[in-house]
Amino acid sequence: MRAFFIGRFQPYHLGHHEVLREIFSEVDEVVIGIGSAQESHTVENPFTAGERIMMVDRAVGEIKNPGQKVYIVPLEDVYRNSLWVSHVVSMTPYFDVIYSNNPLVIRLFREAGFEVRRTRMFNRMEYHGTEIRRRMISGERWEDLVPEPVVDVIEEIDGVRRIREIANTDF
Amino acid sequence: MRAFFIGRFQPYHLGHHEVLREIFSEVDEVVIGIGSAQESHTVENPFTAGERIMMVDRAVGEIKNPGQKVYIVPLEDVYRNSLWVSHVVSMTPYFDVIYSNNPLVIRLFREAGFEVRRTRMFNRMEYHGTEIRRRMISGERWEDLVPEPVVDVIEEIDGVRRIREIANTDF
Amino acid sequence: MRAFFIGRFQPYHLGHHEVLREIFSEVDEVVIGIGSAQESHTVENPFTAGERIMMVDRAVGEIKNPGQKVYIVPLEDVYRNSLWVSHVVSMTPYFDVIYSNNPLVIRLFREAGFEVRRTRMFNRMEYHGTEIRRRMISGERWEDLVPEPVVDVIEEIDGVRRIREIANTDF
Amino acid sequence: MRAFFIGRFQPYHLGHHEVLREIFSEVDEVVIGIGSAQESHTVENPFTAGERIMMVDRAVGEIKNPGQKVYIVPLEDVYRNSLWVSHVVSMTPYFDVIYSNNPLVIRLFREAGFEVRRTRMFNRMEYHGTEIRRRMISGERWEDLVPEPVVDVIEEIDGVRRIREIANTDF
Amino acid sequence: MRAFFIGRFQPYHLGHHEVLREIFSEVDEVVIGIGSAQESHTVENPFTAGERIMMVDRAVGEIKNPGQKVYIVPLEDVYRNSLWVSHVVSMTPYFDVIYSNNPLVIRLFREAGFEVRRTRMFNRMEYHGTEIRRRMISGERWEDLVPEPVVDVIEEIDGVRRIREIANTDF
Amino acid sequence: MRAFFIGRFQPYHLGHHEVLREIFSEVDEVVIGIGSAQESHTVENPFTAGERIMMVDRAVGEIKNPGQKVYIVPLEDVYRNSLWVSHVVSMTPYFDVIYSNNPLVIRLFREAGFEVRRTRMFNRMEYHGTEIRRRMISGERWEDLVPEPVVDVIEEIDGVRRIREIANTDF
Repeated sequence: MRAFFIGRFQPYHLGHHEVLREIFSEVDEVVIGIGSAQESHTVENPFTAGERIMMVDRAVGEIKNPGQKVYIVPLEDVYRNSLWVSHVVSMTPYFDVIYSNNPLVIRLFREAGFEVRRTRMFNRMEYHGTEIRRRMISGERWEDLVPEPVVDVIEEIDGVRRIREIANTDF
Repeated sequence: MRAFFIGRFQPYHLGHHEVLREIFSEVDEVVIGIGSAQESHTVENPFTAGERIMMVDRAVGEIKNPGQKVYIVPLEDVYRNSLWVSHVVSMTPYFDVIYSNNPLVIRLFREAGFEVRRTRMFNRMEYHGTEIRRRMISGERWEDLVPEPVVDVIEEIDGVRRIREIANTDF
Repeated sequence: MRAFFIGRFQPYHLGHHEVLREIFSEVDEVVIGIGSAQESHTVENPFTAGERIMMVDRAVGEIKNPGQKVYIVPLEDVYRNSLWVSHVVSMTPYFDVIYSNNPLVIRLFREAGFEVRRTRMFNRMEYHGTEIRRRMISGERWEDLVPEPVVDVIEEIDGVRRIREIANTDF
Repeated sequence: MRAFFIGRFQPYHLGHHEVLREIFSEVDEVVIGIGSAQESHTVENPFTAGERIMMVDRAVGEIKNPGQKVYIVPLEDVYRNSLWVSHVVSMTPYFDVIYSNNPLVIRLFREAGFEVRRTRMFNRMEYHGTEIRRRMISGERWEDLVPEPVVDVIEEIDGVRRIREIANTDF
Repeated sequence: MRAFFIGRFQPYHLGHHEVLREIFSEVDEVVIGIGSAQESHTVENPFTAGERIMMVDRAVGEIKNPGQKVYIVPLEDVYRNSLWVSHVVSMTPYFDVIYSNNPLVIRLFREAGFEVRRTRMFNRMEYHGTEIRRRMISGERWEDLVPEPVVDVIEEIDGVRRIREIANTDF
Repeated sequence: MRAFFIGRFQPYHLGHHEVLREIFSEVDEVVIGIGSAQESHTVENPFTAGERIMMVDRAVGEIKNPGQKVYIVPLEDVYRNSLWVSHVVSMTPYFDVIYSNNPLVIRLFREAGFEVRRTRMFNRMEYHGTEIRRRMISGERWEDLVPEPVVDVIEEIDGVRRIREIANTDF
């Protein structure tokens, strides 16, 4: 069975990690969509799709069995909800079920006749992109909120410096 | 070292296969871009990006070592050559070198300061997407021109029937 | 004489109804543009253009004479004000006059040399899309604020459930 | 029962007329999509969507009963076949069946699970947009190949002069 | 040496003027990009790119020497930060250095390997587009905050009336 | 009086030069639009908009008086003829008259109510972009067909090598 899961992964954090751990306990193959792939270099979306592919790829290595399969697919926005499911379907390998907690994602896939499974929430206070980006900008400790391989990727691309420079309005 | 290679893969065939075999003999990681990802359901571009991900993924399993890594990334056209390299770079993991035989790809990456390596040609008469699609439409034998896993994918999606129906103008 | 009137119709309500009743008392033919036609499945724009065509079509049947003519035309946004009048003109049958109360619509058509007539406001407190959508989401009574045929359309498409699901952030 | 039929209508001609006459003999309501709505002022697509709405609207008046219903909806191209059915569905009132002779339209709707009915061909030599536009440009008689109300619309907009001027390369 | 400077110029004001005066004291040629060129007829972006070309052109005549050169280039948004530098480079004559105080502009050009120089701020309270547009709308005196030739352009196009009409929600 | 003239300028050649010489003999100010500004790095459109700005700017210096004024404005395609005039108008300083020999340009501006003046043709055999690009690719002498400053620009950007590399299909 193949599942679909989508996130923006700005950055990939332990909340995503726990959800994917659960999904891999139920299915053998997962297509992970990287949403808003065209976005980068903003406070809300600091990382490029390519950088996020690296984060997801390395982190997922920690939670899946060798026999399990993952496809990581960047998905540009189409800006029309009525076309979005067709867009996802055309860009990804066939999947049988969607895992999501996003009301719009759930609604759109259900309207299109897909099976959707609700995912659990894990420590939503801290495991949340907004909180992690806030800490990066303010210079607080964020490294405990993401898997270790993601810390490595962000260091390799000097990501904290990027988000701090973009956030800078001090002049 | 990580390399970038791009094709439309309509479908993935033995020409691609031999080029990638050579690339994997030289580098450890390859980013394979699926060009014109937004195209499908035409005689020139019958297969969706998702279907082409399946073809590439299964075929590459035949030629790379377990220790080697492949990233498969669908790339929508941006319709502006001057933006294309930036588009590719933003959508893919960082790479050190490009392998290509396409004059425009070579020129654009070289103008942007990248190292580009020319690839060899393998039986260009037969190992060519146009020829394979022509055979699919006319009912000739095409299966010998693609790796076996690609035959499987095209059968699973009933791909020959799709291209023949679209090509049909006989009424 | 042919008039042009535009609205988003999310949903069509009694405010639109009264304005159109006035317009039909002055002209014989009306082109009704459905604005932001590409939008759907959001709290602000829950209904598709096709669903809104149904609402407008059935409601207008209540207020026009058999000899009067209506054209209902979905209009996608062009995201450039300086092109918008040309866009509308190209997508619609020729018209002689615009009815509107929207400052931007008035300004753009006047700059382009068209005659624009101000419309009256009817009970703007209640006859307003925002208020009606708020009631749908909160489970209050909204059916008195739209013409009866619009209630029918929204029921046929199970529209209240859609907006409530999309608005749901309770998890 | 509601049917969907699409054409570019450059211009609406007797071939379209006979097909629609057949459709109206089988169903009560027809949604007529005006394809490539964004195109105009070229030799292939001389008329705007608004002008084509006029042609279709007046011509259809000749062939449907008073109790039958027609919706005329301009449809801009989306340039991605995999999104096209979702685009059409979002822009139009719900329909039960598609009438078409276009292989791509047939394939795309069938892949999406719709019922498609093949339409008959009527004097395809003469009742064809290309032939009619050729006659307009060369100054030959084209008026017998379209319904009379379409002749009126083309005269009102001085349409023959437009296509001849655009086609002019004699300088 | 040739420099690049970008602004939205809604409208061109004395803050831009002082920065450009400094730039012209350091380099011989300046490419001035008119950002968000596609925007017009909103409270935030009232003037078209063409109108802003006029403002910049006439104002710059006051501060550059006859031997110095200016290129004024409207730049439409590309809505993807990762493509923006390539977009600017393709649309403009070659330049050696960028002058800017915008964190995103600085970051994007530096990431692309360009030299960027910080500009000084001049009376940021008053010399600011938002403040000037606010005064235009409220009927206060704004003419002292822009160079005299800009007052002339805005009068020629009746620009204050435009922004006031668009801002009007009083009905 | 201000005139508008548009070309693709791939490259700017003596045909353009003679037409502009005539225009400058009739009017004081000319807005020169650089058409298909987004195109570059193809055999049909080898040069970027920025490179073409350089060609036009330097060449026009040869034919206008010091008291005459030129505005050079890159214009991206909008892919919809019905919006094109509004696009041009929004991106350029106001103009009173259009000079053109292109049937579509003439038709679109006349339909919008503008005065259009036909330009003469000068040695259309040789002074033609297609012929000049053909000579560049084949290694023949092209330098006599463009003004001298254009030769300089093309040498500075190593333009002949670019078009030859892109045209290369010899492998």
